[in-house]
Amino acid sequence: MSSLTTTQPAKGLEGVVATTSSICYIDGEQGVLAYRGIDIHELADNANFEETCHLLWFGKLPTRNELKDLRERLARERHLDPAIINLLQTAPKNITPMDVLRTAVSALSFYDPDQKSNDHEANVRKAIRLTSQIAMTVAAYDRIRKGKNIVEPDRSLSHAANFLLLLNGSRPSETAERALDIALILHADHELNASTFAARVTAATLSDMHSAITSAIGALKGPHTEDPRATHLRKMSRDLGNSSGKGKWFEMSSRIEQFVKSEKKLNANVDFYSASTYHTLGIDVDMFTPVFAVSRISGWTAHVIEQLDDNRLIRPRADYVGPAYPQHYIPIDRR
Amino acid sequence: MSSLTTTQPAKGLEGVVATTSSICYIDGEQGVLAYRGIDIHELADNANFEETCHLLWFGKLPTRNELKDLRERLARERHLDPAIINLLQTAPKNITPMDVLRTAVSALSFYDPDQKSNDHEANVRKAIRLTSQIAMTVAAYDRIRKGKNIVEPDRSLSHAANFLLLLNGSRPSETAERALDIALILHADHELNASTFAARVTAATLSDMHSAITSAIGALKGPHTEDPRATHLRKMSRDLGNSSGKGKWFEMSSRIEQFVKSEKKLNANVDFYSASTYHTLGIDVDMFTPVFAVSRISGWTAHVIEQLDDNRLIRPRADYVGPAYPQHYIPIDRR
Repeated sequence: MSSLTTTQPAKGLEGVVATTSSICYIDGEQGVLAYRGIDIHELADNANFEETCHLLWFGKLPTRNELKDLRERLARERHLDPAIINLLQTAPKNITPMDVLRTAVSALSFYDPDQKSNDHEANVRKAIRLTSQIAMTVAAYDRIRKGKNIVEPDRSLSHAANFLLLLNGSRPSETAERALDIALILHADHELNASTFAARVTAATLSDMHSAITSAIGALKGPHTEDPRATHLRKMSRDLGNSSGKGKWFEMSSRIEQFVKSEKKLNANVDFYSASTYHTLGIDVDMFTPVFAVSRISGWTAHVIEQLDDNRLIRPRADYVGPAYPQHYIPIDRR
Repeated sequence: MSSLTTTQPAKGLEGVVATTSSICYIDGEQGVLAYRGIDIHELADNANFEETCHLLWFGKLPTRNELKDLRERLARERHLDPAIINLLQTAPKNITPMDVLRTAVSALSFYDPDQKSNDHEANVRKAIRLTSQIAMTVAAYDRIRKGKNIVEPDRSLSHAANFLLLLNGSRPSETAERALDIALILHADHELNASTFAARVTAATLSDMHSAITSAIGALKGPHTEDPRATHLRKMSRDLGNSSGKGKWFEMSSRIEQFVKSEKKLNANVDFYSASTYHTLGIDVDMFTPVFAVSRISGWTAHVIEQLDDNRLIRPRADYVGPAYPQHYIPIDRR
């Protein structure tokens, strides 16, 4: 039986292939996750976030000149329209940061110089712009809700270092910068996870990048967990704890992990070691998901570009299980 | 071969069953579209939009008391927070109304009294609230961009009549009210079209109603056309044209339809007769899609409620066609 005529529901589309993609390779049994064929652990050991963005968006690691160019383009986009700052400042203080981020990214479309364009090159520009803008938005909102001043970006810094500057008001240590860089690399993509699939479904109507990314952020807000890739974050958490004098957080995490593994037969997932790392970097618990978006915007935008480069509307069917057709309209006094 | 283990891609998930649903029955060959088993033409002939909302949200046509209650609940929600009005007023004037609507609906979550709740009853309240708020947002934005004052809602009017009052600044004729009512009924749902599917994918992460509807609006922004259901709109366009003295628009539409049918062998779709109807109702061309959302919010919210009542993450796979794993990280000077 061809899958093209499949009518039996695969609940949640589990195991169903929705598209081809050349971005992310997953082998669940072997625990492999690779971007464009390169294992994420190899990237985490050697690359930085900007190289990873280049790999995701352009399909290959950059030459030295290409990397310099991309860093300059990202740095130039470190700017938020005053209306976006105003939106962050006037948002009520009791709401979840993901609602604010979703709304801010939707509103960023108002001020995008490529707002009327949906071609490949315009979408690459939007990917670069949104990567810088989402980092700025997350950091600025965290400052605003804490009653702190907004920090001016430093265009000479890396993406990770600039984000930590905007968040904490001071230049990070090299260890902290590297720790965030690794976290950004590890979370950058994960094939058709639900948020990325929401982005592709939206883009596939030939809607625009901002609509697709707004959908992704809305889907990411849900509490469903992502994949396990704790190895690097465990090491990072330890290194960072040692360098910052906050090693107790890593010690606590490590002991909790061992306890849970021996008593509950559960392995730690990526979120577990993210927690102690992020805490040490000055990232509050309710900002973990927004910071995840600071990373994942690279993968989301790569998927939207890939979707639109060879588009097809994504439109499955539902298996109708309601009242048999035809029911009839019954006048209101006879109901 | 079971579809649960299908690995051959069905591009765009065409023909793939993504979920069960009891909301919308489609028989493409017979040209049937039915809500909860009742043909939309029977609904268009007999029901109003509020009855249709009740049918979609609660699974049955309302008794007289239930209808009275629903109309009162919808009327009570005819209110927009001043911050939303401010967002509409400060948005640049050169952007597409769908970008504004998507952002406004995302921001409406900030002020929703049920923002921390995601249970069935809270989502029914959000469905009612969003149905009123989206109509108000679309009408208010159209007034604002034309430099006109915002009109106060009339809580004694039907949903359709109140919308036309807010849009045009005067109470509509009975014919105009009925014409919009029919358009709202006809567009209220269409199974897993791309915008509804985007809403369900987002909701299925256990995210919230506003995230799901924001995704839907983002997907609806794309230019992909919806289904053909011109029969009712053709008749409505003629009736409305006659009553308003603007019969020339119907005449023109009808002659164009005959010409295209005989010369090009193409049938008119729903959008064709919407155009002359909407023009007569005071709805500009670039507001057609936002007005579609004024109707479809009823179906979107019904689908989100159904999804969350028996949830499962929607997470298909991609068929990886990129560089074979493992590729390796090459130092930058050797690239």
